[in-house]
Amino acid sequence: MSLQGVYDGENIFAKIVRGDMPAIRICEDAATLAFVDVFPQSPGHALVIHKTSRARNLLDVDLDDLAAVMATTRRVVRAVVPALRPDGVVISQFNGSAAGQTVFHLHIHIIPRWEGVPLGRHAGGMADLDDLKDLARRIAAKLEP
Amino acid sequence: MSLQGVYDGENIFAKIVRGDMPAIRICEDAATLAFVDVFPQSPGHALVIHKTSRARNLLDVDLDDLAAVMATTRRVVRAVVPALRPDGVVISQFNGSAAGQTVFHLHIHIIPRWEGVPLGRHAGGMADLDDLKDLARRIAAKLEP
Repeated sequence: MSLQGVYDGENIFAKIVRGDMPAIRICEDAATLAFVDVFPQSPGHALVIHKTSRARNLLDVDLDDLAAVMATTRRVVRAVVPALRPDGVVISQFNGSAAGQTVFHLHIHIIPRWEGVPLGRHAGGMADLDDLKDLARRIAAKLEP
Repeated sequence: MSLQGVYDGENIFAKIVRGDMPAIRICEDAATLAFVDVFPQSPGHALVIHKTSRARNLLDVDLDDLAAVMATTRRVVRAVVPALRPDGVVISQFNGSAAGQTVFHLHIHIIPRWEGVPLGRHAGGMADLDDLKDLARRIAAKLEP
């Protein structure tokens, strides 16, 4: 998929927002949704999306929508740190297939890192859903209001 | 360096903001500065920082400062695409040494990607300064007002 194009409302994140696909939610507000990646690169790998923006990536996102997504990203990172005690946290956002983007609805990756533990390959395998629910619950428990 | 700590005003990005260290600038406004990474992972690798925020990373950044940094990030990405014609663009932001952070002043990486071209190792080697100046000039020429 190219960097520029038309938003496809049938992408899986749009389906999650509509409730047509399940997701293990961490938090949700009027504008944004955070949930766990079912193909995690590390334990606690989370995704943050805007619920109504039809932006495919950073090129076409409205600045207010981007600010809302980043505010939720900060909020989730601030909860991931006390919840999971990672040594570091990587934030990434991919634009275009050549950059690693697989779902063309703007999303931010939050990837906890532990010293000496290499990252798993994204989409290397689906995680155990009970494990993911436990991680989401532990992160949610540390969210600030 | 740990995820949480005290901002050190002697970091190299703070020195760049003060003019105590050189940088090859792409653009600058009242709040933010974008410049090229002298140890690029790909041609056009750029960094965006806030000029007055004393945030080390995403954990301690003010939301308005983060929004300003992200607005400049979007602006630079929108110029990188027509200037360099990458197939994709990776955005990343590292929190803590374990995540790959080496300078403890919040910064966003903008890394153009080309299909089939692997990324170079960050800090693998300093790029030719004339090449970097040419890239910065080409990106700056495509900036929207």
